[in-house]
Amino acid sequence: MAKEITSRAENYSQWYNDLVVKAGLADNSAVRGCMVIKPYGYAIWEKIQGILDKMFKDTGHSNAYFPLFIPKSFFSKEASHVEGFAKECAVVTHYRLKNDPNGKGIIVDEDAKLEEELIVRPTSETIIWNTYKGWIQSYRDLPLLINQWANVVRWEMRTRLFLRTAEFLWQEGHTAHATQEEAIEETYKMVNVYADFAENFMAVPVIKGVKTANERFAGAIDTLCIEALMQDGKALQSGTSHFLGQNFAKAFDVKFASKDGKLDYVWATSWGVSTRLMGALIMAHSDDNGLVLPPKLAPIQVVIVPIYNKPEQLEVVSEKILPIKKQLEAKGLTVKFDDRDNYKPGFKFAEHEMKGVPVRIAIGPRDIENNTLEIARRDTLEKKIIAIDEAVDYIPQLLDDIQKNIFQKALQYRQEHTFKTDSYDEFKQILDEKGGFILAHWDGTSETETLIKEETKATIRCIPFDNPQEVGKCIRTGKPSTQRVMFARAY
Amino acid sequence: MAKEITSRAENYSQWYNDLVVKAGLADNSAVRGCMVIKPYGYAIWEKIQGILDKMFKDTGHSNAYFPLFIPKSFFSKEASHVEGFAKECAVVTHYRLKNDPNGKGIIVDEDAKLEEELIVRPTSETIIWNTYKGWIQSYRDLPLLINQWANVVRWEMRTRLFLRTAEFLWQEGHTAHATQEEAIEETYKMVNVYADFAENFMAVPVIKGVKTANERFAGAIDTLCIEALMQDGKALQSGTSHFLGQNFAKAFDVKFASKDGKLDYVWATSWGVSTRLMGALIMAHSDDNGLVLPPKLAPIQVVIVPIYNKPEQLEVVSEKILPIKKQLEAKGLTVKFDDRDNYKPGFKFAEHEMKGVPVRIAIGPRDIENNTLEIARRDTLEKKIIAIDEAVDYIPQLLDDIQKNIFQKALQYRQEHTFKTDSYDEFKQILDEKGGFILAHWDGTSETETLIKEETKATIRCIPFDNPQEVGKCIRTGKPSTQRVMFARAY
Repeated sequence: MAKEITSRAENYSQWYNDLVVKAGLADNSAVRGCMVIKPYGYAIWEKIQGILDKMFKDTGHSNAYFPLFIPKSFFSKEASHVEGFAKECAVVTHYRLKNDPNGKGIIVDEDAKLEEELIVRPTSETIIWNTYKGWIQSYRDLPLLINQWANVVRWEMRTRLFLRTAEFLWQEGHTAHATQEEAIEETYKMVNVYADFAENFMAVPVIKGVKTANERFAGAIDTLCIEALMQDGKALQSGTSHFLGQNFAKAFDVKFASKDGKLDYVWATSWGVSTRLMGALIMAHSDDNGLVLPPKLAPIQVVIVPIYNKPEQLEVVSEKILPIKKQLEAKGLTVKFDDRDNYKPGFKFAEHEMKGVPVRIAIGPRDIENNTLEIARRDTLEKKIIAIDEAVDYIPQLLDDIQKNIFQKALQYRQEHTFKTDSYDEFKQILDEKGGFILAHWDGTSETETLIKEETKATIRCIPFDNPQEVGKCIRTGKPSTQRVMFARAY
Repeated sequence: MAKEITSRAENYSQWYNDLVVKAGLADNSAVRGCMVIKPYGYAIWEKIQGILDKMFKDTGHSNAYFPLFIPKSFFSKEASHVEGFAKECAVVTHYRLKNDPNGKGIIVDEDAKLEEELIVRPTSETIIWNTYKGWIQSYRDLPLLINQWANVVRWEMRTRLFLRTAEFLWQEGHTAHATQEEAIEETYKMVNVYADFAENFMAVPVIKGVKTANERFAGAIDTLCIEALMQDGKALQSGTSHFLGQNFAKAFDVKFASKDGKLDYVWATSWGVSTRLMGALIMAHSDDNGLVLPPKLAPIQVVIVPIYNKPEQLEVVSEKILPIKKQLEAKGLTVKFDDRDNYKPGFKFAEHEMKGVPVRIAIGPRDIENNTLEIARRDTLEKKIIAIDEAVDYIPQLLDDIQKNIFQKALQYRQEHTFKTDSYDEFKQILDEKGGFILAHWDGTSETETLIKEETKATIRCIPFDNPQEVGKCIRTGKPSTQRVMFARAY
């Protein structure tokens, strides 16, 4: 089974696609650019959702749900927002089909044309701020801390499973505050929540920073982000948190009365992560044998494969191992006993390797005689024989160790692929030969950033928080610079 | 606050709308027929989702996600399906907006017309069975037991919050089986899951039965359902489970090889419940003071309102009651301490009553002196003074009692509003004067059912499972009948 995927060295991009399909994570659908998230992929997404949802609630947020459709006119209300999203949206123009009078199947009923077209939400700032106008009158109504789990549509021309699809699943937080300070604090709080999640659950190290104007969200004053590095040396923006100032409050006329009765516009943030995180998770850790999952996000953490020829042997093995399974489950682990009769152990091993199950236990009649079992860890592919009685203590530790190890491995990769340079030639050479993050001086203008992007396909991923200030010269123009910024080619 | 809603006697329909809005459950949005589900309403929906999701997983189902959009041509493939859904769907025809060259804002870019229109899913049988074609080759791939949590759109002309909205949230199960028997068994299993959920969590008694051909799902061989009775005597279909036969497998050419190598079409079911359940929940139990929630679905089960004038008093009360709160939480209850300083106790009482919090504790300095607290139960509005030390044992029992009581109350209402008649005049009189379910003979034809509907607005809600067989005459035509069926006016 593992033989069926292309190796990373041969073709990284094909490796990724093969892996997503063969591990049962997602498929392309009959609808251009839209994917089907398969049960195993969706189970990982449910884990991501569950953990993030708890983090949002622990920081005081509640979930709500807003309409899928946004009236076209709403987009025009925030000038830069419409520029950013109008070019890639699905437009609903009619509300009925009918039988073709010429007998050619069903056609759109032209009598059922909408007075105003509806846009399938690419993001919900406009419909939400239009709603908030009815919810916010006084300082007592603030802060309003709301999150939505939803599907959104952006009509991307080039799509890739999880990384860039026309429809994707995400969460979008939309908060309203009485003061600028509080809104900015919220923006930082949520990018920190994302970084915490990425590092401590996904085992993906991230750089937190601020986007330049070129890369900012359409309608934001400031966009904060987390940036991760994939195994091919390309960066992946994994989450963003926007300080929106009073832009949307002004566009939708949302004012509040302060304690002393003065009217002012409300301050806003929005923040989101999407099924793109699945792409980051897959690409950060996996290998040529398939998926490697951090135990904290693995739908199955431990799989037990019984080795047997005859039904009596399976019975003996089951009798010995099922109590161990129970004890592991009592410790909160998810354990699967793979006693499918129509597949051989070798097939099962390859399948669970492909699916990234962190720990595999194999146990057969000879192991029973020796009172041992074989444990294989997915991250290093190492195998080890241990006494059966040790398993219940050993496996939770092993899972912890795997979680830490894959984070460390990703961190080490990033450290080895983070470069400083003051030469534009070297800059280009690094991009072509090694990839990774490059810290380089930049003159602070959008023009230069665009020029560098055109010449090298690299963009400024972010200006890291607490970025050291130092005197230097822009790598492209030679103009004065006060700090290095973080460049990379990105997904 | 409670004064703000219309009473049921005055105008039931207005009472419902007032309640939904005032209790903070949902709002109409700027988009025709689409609602905003507010945080409190969404918190109830999350409880519903969580419980149902576990029930689905416990019966072997996995979640997955399929595209929002369905190519128009897919609908034509199953003849009765397109008839049922084509008249009420949102059609995406373009994928881009642009600036009007005449400077009149943004307009649809006619150059970005889709080759084939996309329908926003009203239900997903077609896109899912088109996908299953790639997933199912052999009996080893069956059964395929999949569920999806998603939004769907049906362009309803008359909409009401939760009960009938253009966009709504739901789950749709789609299963594939090797045999007819197994598919039928699944159809019954899931309608039983729905009935279990409705009765044991929502505290809403339901009648399980089979739909007549007139009321069947477009594309099904048989539709099973659960039917509940609301306080105005109207029925609410609360969940359906469809046996689809081989209709969709044939439409999308999904065959499997059996163990002995023969090719056959796959057997299918689909089943769903939606945010409509929120409507059932609200209408079944609530009163003129607001919402009444069954404890098992209440986002807040117990609210504690401290009574105080001075901050020192609040401190004394808090010191006494917070340990009780902790102990209740340790028992798995959700408890809110409402120490908001800018609202008076009377306002808080009315608010929590409106929101249907099952149990309210009030405690002030005098209670502390007496070592007592006041407990109010939302279902009966009864108040009781108990010793503080008793609270931790008493409240969980009280919640159980409330859960049972509101079910019993709803059951009793239904029993008092279930009638048998053999006279068409009496049939009409019951409908006009009392409402409720009417068991009456029917000749078994769609024509007569349609005639009765036109004349009385009553439909056959279902033919209950294990329906007693008896000789009789159709209430409308006098033709022979073998059983009574269950009529009602319905939402």
